[in-house]
Amino acid sequence: MTDERPPVAIIMGSQSDWETMKNAADTLDILGVGYEARIVSAHRTPDRLVSFAKGARDEGFQVIIAGAGGAAHLPGMAAAMTPLPVFGVPVQSKALSGQDSLLSIVQMPAGIPVGTLAIGKAGAVNAALLAAAVLALHDEDLADRLDEWRARQTAAVAEYPMDDQI
Amino acid sequence: MTDERPPVAIIMGSQSDWETMKNAADTLDILGVGYEARIVSAHRTPDRLVSFAKGARDEGFQVIIAGAGGAAHLPGMAAAMTPLPVFGVPVQSKALSGQDSLLSIVQMPAGIPVGTLAIGKAGAVNAALLAAAVLALHDEDLADRLDEWRARQTAAVAEYPMDDQI
Amino acid sequence: MTDERPPVAIIMGSQSDWETMKNAADTLDILGVGYEARIVSAHRTPDRLVSFAKGARDEGFQVIIAGAGGAAHLPGMAAAMTPLPVFGVPVQSKALSGQDSLLSIVQMPAGIPVGTLAIGKAGAVNAALLAAAVLALHDEDLADRLDEWRARQTAAVAEYPMDDQI
Amino acid sequence: MTDERPPVAIIMGSQSDWETMKNAADTLDILGVGYEARIVSAHRTPDRLVSFAKGARDEGFQVIIAGAGGAAHLPGMAAAMTPLPVFGVPVQSKALSGQDSLLSIVQMPAGIPVGTLAIGKAGAVNAALLAAAVLALHDEDLADRLDEWRARQTAAVAEYPMDDQI
Amino acid sequence: MTDERPPVAIIMGSQSDWETMKNAADTLDILGVGYEARIVSAHRTPDRLVSFAKGARDEGFQVIIAGAGGAAHLPGMAAAMTPLPVFGVPVQSKALSGQDSLLSIVQMPAGIPVGTLAIGKAGAVNAALLAAAVLALHDEDLADRLDEWRARQTAAVAEYPMDDQI
Amino acid sequence: MTDERPPVAIIMGSQSDWETMKNAADTLDILGVGYEARIVSAHRTPDRLVSFAKGARDEGFQVIIAGAGGAAHLPGMAAAMTPLPVFGVPVQSKALSGQDSLLSIVQMPAGIPVGTLAIGKAGAVNAALLAAAVLALHDEDLADRLDEWRARQTAAVAEYPMDDQI
Amino acid sequence: MTDERPPVAIIMGSQSDWETMKNAADTLDILGVGYEARIVSAHRTPDRLVSFAKGARDEGFQVIIAGAGGAAHLPGMAAAMTPLPVFGVPVQSKALSGQDSLLSIVQMPAGIPVGTLAIGKAGAVNAALLAAAVLALHDEDLADRLDEWRARQTAAVAEYPMDDQI
Amino acid sequence: MTDERPPVAIIMGSQSDWETMKNAADTLDILGVGYEARIVSAHRTPDRLVSFAKGARDEGFQVIIAGAGGAAHLPGMAAAMTPLPVFGVPVQSKALSGQDSLLSIVQMPAGIPVGTLAIGKAGAVNAALLAAAVLALHDEDLADRLDEWRARQTAAVAEYPMDDQI
Repeated sequence: MTDERPPVAIIMGSQSDWETMKNAADTLDILGVGYEARIVSAHRTPDRLVSFAKGARDEGFQVIIAGAGGAAHLPGMAAAMTPLPVFGVPVQSKALSGQDSLLSIVQMPAGIPVGTLAIGKAGAVNAALLAAAVLALHDEDLADRLDEWRARQTAAVAEYPMDDQI
Repeated sequence: MTDERPPVAIIMGSQSDWETMKNAADTLDILGVGYEARIVSAHRTPDRLVSFAKGARDEGFQVIIAGAGGAAHLPGMAAAMTPLPVFGVPVQSKALSGQDSLLSIVQMPAGIPVGTLAIGKAGAVNAALLAAAVLALHDEDLADRLDEWRARQTAAVAEYPMDDQI
Repeated sequence: MTDERPPVAIIMGSQSDWETMKNAADTLDILGVGYEARIVSAHRTPDRLVSFAKGARDEGFQVIIAGAGGAAHLPGMAAAMTPLPVFGVPVQSKALSGQDSLLSIVQMPAGIPVGTLAIGKAGAVNAALLAAAVLALHDEDLADRLDEWRARQTAAVAEYPMDDQI
Repeated sequence: MTDERPPVAIIMGSQSDWETMKNAADTLDILGVGYEARIVSAHRTPDRLVSFAKGARDEGFQVIIAGAGGAAHLPGMAAAMTPLPVFGVPVQSKALSGQDSLLSIVQMPAGIPVGTLAIGKAGAVNAALLAAAVLALHDEDLADRLDEWRARQTAAVAEYPMDDQI
Repeated sequence: MTDERPPVAIIMGSQSDWETMKNAADTLDILGVGYEARIVSAHRTPDRLVSFAKGARDEGFQVIIAGAGGAAHLPGMAAAMTPLPVFGVPVQSKALSGQDSLLSIVQMPAGIPVGTLAIGKAGAVNAALLAAAVLALHDEDLADRLDEWRARQTAAVAEYPMDDQI
Repeated sequence: MTDERPPVAIIMGSQSDWETMKNAADTLDILGVGYEARIVSAHRTPDRLVSFAKGARDEGFQVIIAGAGGAAHLPGMAAAMTPLPVFGVPVQSKALSGQDSLLSIVQMPAGIPVGTLAIGKAGAVNAALLAAAVLALHDEDLADRLDEWRARQTAAVAEYPMDDQI
Repeated sequence: MTDERPPVAIIMGSQSDWETMKNAADTLDILGVGYEARIVSAHRTPDRLVSFAKGARDEGFQVIIAGAGGAAHLPGMAAAMTPLPVFGVPVQSKALSGQDSLLSIVQMPAGIPVGTLAIGKAGAVNAALLAAAVLALHDEDLADRLDEWRARQTAAVAEYPMDDQI
Repeated sequence: MTDERPPVAIIMGSQSDWETMKNAADTLDILGVGYEARIVSAHRTPDRLVSFAKGARDEGFQVIIAGAGGAAHLPGMAAAMTPLPVFGVPVQSKALSGQDSLLSIVQMPAGIPVGTLAIGKAGAVNAALLAAAVLALHDEDLADRLDEWRARQTAAVAEYPMDDQI
């Protein structure tokens, strides 16, 4: 296993998913976790998917974050071809608001897991946090940064609602 | 293009899908349409899927019927790797009764079509009929057999409901 | 069977469906596949539906693309009266976002198939691609054009997401 | 307008719907309302549907009760071809429990109404009651019988729940 | 039975439902059917509901059109207190787009029918058409006007879609 | 306000709801809270509903638990006619598993509240617990009994799962 | 039990829920019921949740109104740690319009009740009214004010819909 | 960080969840991954939850698998109180077949991630596989065993469906 690649790969089905998945990238930036973001369409670039997923571990990736919408096959197909943990982000779709994306990602059969996060931007942020939690198991500095991030998050919750913020 | 293969390939994600997909096979038998039925799991045998889908046209298949349940990626992934028409059958799943299967198959993004049939056995029968309709465009004998099948179906509808059949 | 008609008929339930179904027409234009687009309302013009569907094969059509929304009966009723392959496009409805359209089209009983595509514009594009795939089985030039279209589609997927495209 | 036919036609898509629709017939029997029950499949016997629906008023029918399941097109297509009031009964389907039947019947576009009742047997009973209410507008004897039926129904509701009935 | 009231009562749960229910009124105007539109809230004015529903037949109403949204109890509660035919219109609700309204209206238990139309404006138009169809059973002039309305509707469907209308 | 009645009224739409609502009665028995269980059908006995709901406060009831299924109007209509707190239990329906019951009860418009519990037996138990919590605000003995019940519930949760209990 | 706190606590998962929950506060203001509104995030401030919920009764609160969206755990977790009645308000979520919020709040297991109101602002208003109804059981002045509020609400319903209000 | 505990904690909301969650335990057994299975009810034993979740990292756990049904708060609340990766398993619920469980677990707000698996037994198996994939990042022996398990799974997929297995 080499280490030329950053620990996290963020893949998504199309350019339009970046608006959602950028939130995963931003969160990893804040936590100081390296990543590489790529467009890998399960449907339009299946060869790229096979090549990426089969090579991901050897390239040095440790966690894969995959976002897709509609009949979202990218997370599950990546998981079928890599032993690395795959976290899926259901991108909010136009007609069905991501209900199709969610079911297409989460309802994987026994044998090939995809850890699925919430529909949309919250899911992208949380995929990054979950990836960081995994990496932090063997990276005490990251564990500290993650603890601090969580502490800041807790501290940032105001005690009382304020009307002028609406 | 050789003709060593029958015109229709019936693929399914697991042995348990055969209970549903057998209805496609039986319907093709009745119509005198050749087929080959294989288990191709998008998730557990992705290499077999790639090999099958990429080679399907050259092997002589003309139409692919693909059935799967849950996060059903088989029909869409096959369609991503073959120019042949792919018809998808959502197998009824345990918890969500095939709603997940249906959305995972039908909600394909623009660019890679899967003609989707009804959830369960009716969908399997209809995938066979649709495949036959496609093949009948250039097979007058089959067109005649299909017409006869449809005429028999029409004739078999009783005029009045009968209590003793319940 | 005469050949006065183009191979594909695009029918839709109302003028308002054209915004969606035009995407099928545009895709067929790009692929060089002839078509005729007509408004055929199952509910408001049932005679036109019967006349169209019963005569479609004899007029020379080979594939029917039918789009409708809400209680969308057009694709299934056309399929009931023609042996030609029928591909259905669920038009996105106002209140239920096309969930009613989808179920009304895809859940056909055994005996009368409708190959159903995704809700909305993606479904319309894909109905055209599926029709082309069917026609390409006996039209090598079209098969080549479809292969090229798919290759261009693959090539058009960028490697990396770009912020400025959002 | 002749009177050779009874006032109510009960039509259904298949023999298997009779288990549900028989409840409409039984209710009409109790109320002393004449009816004729027929199998008319929109998909398998479209000619029979056209013939029935177009001729229904001239044959003397006054109200049509139509039951169907899945992609249930029978009530809406009948309503498209007759000016008579049509009441639709969504038959409970296997995979989707009648959600598809309900949406396929109730979500008719402006212009062609179907008065839709509940999924399953309750809906069949109520279609009969609604047909009777319509006929009772100009049949005082029936109005009296309907009032009595409703009064008996009210009187039959026990004051207190009883354990031994469970 | 007196005739002081017009044949149709349009009732609705709140002023905000009028935007939807006005379509029923407009349709009745076009067909020359008299009606009276009133706000009757099942929840906020239960006495008014009881008084209206119990007296509706004696006041001379023949058909009731009832529209409501959310936990829409008005149509069913009116039907519980009058033998007149009641047609229900599910008003599109904010959070659930009328799915709650639809189920609250259509899923009536055996014994008390509500003929339910589509969610929103189409449903309101169709409730008026269904009421007219009921009244036309004993009003030949109205039957003629309804036939003409339907014929005009059919004639108004263009043959070909036009881009400039989008 | 007299005190001839026990503090809790359990009402339900039909005898068949008792199987569910009995769990509320049993829970109140355990907690030593008096109740009266009655069948009050919003649809079949609307007069009984009006009479019960309008008189409930004066009769001495303090909390109303109302269970119903399908187009479940009983809880909301009771709440429309009494200022007492009303807690609604969605009874699991046959076709839609209580989704219709839930939405019909919980989606009340602003102005008339129904505190809604879970679908089915858990909801009935919890309606009793919630009623007890309300009564316990001014009944220290009951508050103690409720605390003890909750403590016993907590103590009854085993530390480790056991295979032989499956 | 001290009385330093007002009788009602309004808690919510985040500042953004205040837009919804403010309607509960406004309604309590109108009814003259004291309350305290606080942000208590089950997920981001679990310690604050534990501290608040466990101490709520001793601090003098009598009723808790809890609003949250998405995987809304606040109402149920508060109910797990206090014997006080808890009323839950499902805040409308972005992707799923509050369907996730509703199910996360209402489907509590037997043992820990949350009286759940409608999704969104109507639910917030009604949580306040339900809290007032509970408090009014032992506060005759409040009972009178609530009766007056309900009477005014009834009186404010116009008899006839007006076009100019649309 | 000590190592007295096995790397994986399997927690579940009640004894009845063990039938589902046992599949996670069995899968970890096969892979040779240590675990401890405990019942931790978010609602009935909130103190146990707080104690467990806050101490999980210090006790030496590395991954938490949490299963619950209905308004399933256990996975999310555990994730709120531990920085360890939490994988959630939606247990199939009675009325809503796990749709409530799924949404309650997966729709977590940004800040607190739960990697969610499929509803029911497949989800439990996959939670174990995902936990193993995480642990295998720093355990080459486990990585080898997981690779072998996946290879055996692939090899176990038959080429052709067999009737006698149905």
